[in-house]
Amino acid sequence: MQNLDQLKQDLIETGRWIDSRHWCPATSGNLSAWIDAEQFLITVSGKGKGELTPADLMIVDAGGNPVNTQLRPSAETLLHSLIYSRFPDARYVFHTHSVYGTIMSRAIWSGQLVFRNYELQKAFSGIDTHDVEMKVPVFGNSQDMVALAKEVEQHFDSADACHAFILAGHGVYTWGKTAREARRHVEAMEFLLECEYKSCLLLK
Amino acid sequence: MQNLDQLKQDLIETGRWIDSRHWCPATSGNLSAWIDAEQFLITVSGKGKGELTPADLMIVDAGGNPVNTQLRPSAETLLHSLIYSRFPDARYVFHTHSVYGTIMSRAIWSGQLVFRNYELQKAFSGIDTHDVEMKVPVFGNSQDMVALAKEVEQHFDSADACHAFILAGHGVYTWGKTAREARRHVEAMEFLLECEYKSCLLLK
Amino acid sequence: MQNLDQLKQDLIETGRWIDSRHWCPATSGNLSAWIDAEQFLITVSGKGKGELTPADLMIVDAGGNPVNTQLRPSAETLLHSLIYSRFPDARYVFHTHSVYGTIMSRAIWSGQLVFRNYELQKAFSGIDTHDVEMKVPVFGNSQDMVALAKEVEQHFDSADACHAFILAGHGVYTWGKTAREARRHVEAMEFLLECEYKSCLLLK
Amino acid sequence: MQNLDQLKQDLIETGRWIDSRHWCPATSGNLSAWIDAEQFLITVSGKGKGELTPADLMIVDAGGNPVNTQLRPSAETLLHSLIYSRFPDARYVFHTHSVYGTIMSRAIWSGQLVFRNYELQKAFSGIDTHDVEMKVPVFGNSQDMVALAKEVEQHFDSADACHAFILAGHGVYTWGKTAREARRHVEAMEFLLECEYKSCLLLK
Repeated sequence: MQNLDQLKQDLIETGRWIDSRHWCPATSGNLSAWIDAEQFLITVSGKGKGELTPADLMIVDAGGNPVNTQLRPSAETLLHSLIYSRFPDARYVFHTHSVYGTIMSRAIWSGQLVFRNYELQKAFSGIDTHDVEMKVPVFGNSQDMVALAKEVEQHFDSADACHAFILAGHGVYTWGKTAREARRHVEAMEFLLECEYKSCLLLK
Repeated sequence: MQNLDQLKQDLIETGRWIDSRHWCPATSGNLSAWIDAEQFLITVSGKGKGELTPADLMIVDAGGNPVNTQLRPSAETLLHSLIYSRFPDARYVFHTHSVYGTIMSRAIWSGQLVFRNYELQKAFSGIDTHDVEMKVPVFGNSQDMVALAKEVEQHFDSADACHAFILAGHGVYTWGKTAREARRHVEAMEFLLECEYKSCLLLK
Repeated sequence: MQNLDQLKQDLIETGRWIDSRHWCPATSGNLSAWIDAEQFLITVSGKGKGELTPADLMIVDAGGNPVNTQLRPSAETLLHSLIYSRFPDARYVFHTHSVYGTIMSRAIWSGQLVFRNYELQKAFSGIDTHDVEMKVPVFGNSQDMVALAKEVEQHFDSADACHAFILAGHGVYTWGKTAREARRHVEAMEFLLECEYKSCLLLK
Repeated sequence: MQNLDQLKQDLIETGRWIDSRHWCPATSGNLSAWIDAEQFLITVSGKGKGELTPADLMIVDAGGNPVNTQLRPSAETLLHSLIYSRFPDARYVFHTHSVYGTIMSRAIWSGQLVFRNYELQKAFSGIDTHDVEMKVPVFGNSQDMVALAKEVEQHFDSADACHAFILAGHGVYTWGKTAREARRHVEAMEFLLECEYKSCLLLK
């Protein structure tokens, strides 16, 4: 089991950093950290990510159900649960809700974003060149989290592993082995989305 | 009656936050807080919202007239007054003056903005899905506040309740039951306006 | 004569604020304050505006020539001199060098920018409605400051008074009766330029 | 030999400043300082530029090989090496990885960017007017640093001296005689790239 206080501190600091970039506006987004195979820590619903306290973090079981608490987890807890079970290396999952994540995915709604010839693709673990296509799946947004989780699950049954996915008009999920790596993935993903948006305007 | 010192502190902190986002440039915008059925607190005219002091806040009666003071209220006090009387849940009203609020409304001038398929619509109290049309009325700007207030009043006689309206080329009015909720509405509205602008460029 | 220490403090604080908005990148721009009919205070050449010290401010005579100092004034000192002599109310002159000031003027090169239907036009002293055309002259950039100053001078012989002018591909000059007013004019001008740029993209 | 502690401090402070502008996202970019003809100081691989410590800086020889250390230098160390040997005035080399550097170069891939009629061209040492073409070479990105360094080397054999070059889809290299001058070049280059991007959208 990880040191719970350290995990809490990681999420609180990540929240402050994400808020300083305006990537979780209006209490959107959620952040989680793996505790062990049985449980993980996740932000409660409806709190601004820039001012999290330990009381805004709750423990849920591997299926995303609250453990020993009256607190309500974020609606998207099920997606965090899915990521931890599907990607064994994932120790932190960060879901942001940025302008570029929202508009680029909303324009596609269901399909994928393909990045190529960006040096920053290399910020994702396991990618060592700009000269490959990096595919990020986009799933149509839904308020039915069970159905949405199933769709994501089924996608990954047949698709290559990836480092992030996006809910259309909603935001990015990314993850990492450490808080540092997951934050690097967040920053790289947001950078690539901004670049892709601005390139689209330039080249069309 | 609310605690007056707390209300002042709420407006001062909200002003600093809004200024840090550049949403009330050049002393524009105004902020108010409901005291009771007879009066509310509002920023005086011509002060930078990032450096408000208690002396920059004044009490007006329900009709927007100064109470026990020589200070001049913001020109748009009448619109705050209207919102408090029309929407009984409103306890804080924030009027911002952002780039995206300005240009999206100026392009329409009189009509409405319609948001759909944005997860962040759910940041507005009472909306629980991205899959509805969220309509925000836009009123042509005017220096005649009495006429403008009448037009807004008449609009709401026949229109659905909403969470915000916009004066064309001018800015957004939004409100909430608490300072926290009203700030969430401000941030969500600004986010949606930026998304809608950037989506328009992408999709045209 | 104004209190010299206060004037220096005004310019130092204005420099920090302008730098925080990135409106004087790479040591560009210059700031001045009127002392009396015989002299004014201005930033020396080549200093970052975010970290000015009193030693980076020098006194020049009404014609822009250094007084009792080996320091080199900004190349554009002559334009400050012209503004103080032409507009008797001007007590502070701020020259910024922003992205939007640069590109909007560079696209026109010589002519004028016209703003209408922006509520924020009212941030300029003497304007009390959005419903007028606010004209800001744009002069072709030149390294010959004497010729450029003459061109600006001649323009104002026959043109209406205004609150700002722009050098093409270079930046904005604006001024005010107080440091506070001049800063308000800076912020309003930058806001209007950003709005106008973004409106152009939207409406074309 | 330069004072090593001072050089370290210069790189640490430059890193914080660059990070505050988001020009080295997700641990990208690298910063170096010339020690003497035999060696220079450079950031190690994979560290966030906003939180560098002296332990994140390593000494390499003039050819870019580690000296007395187990640390791994940045992949692009060879390009720093090339700049120090090719441009004798270069004492600091900063490689940034910004949105505008990425997308403007990625659109061209191999060729050059030409800037004209920007007053800020004068921020580069040796340029004293807006009225010249300032050419910045763009090299196709490659993971083969030896081949890439050779291509850059050969380009400068026949090309005019310049103040910066760009790797396509990757980022800007610029340099200066002092940390202050190199930072001025960074800020000016980023400003010009943003201006050029936004001008392209406006004028197309």
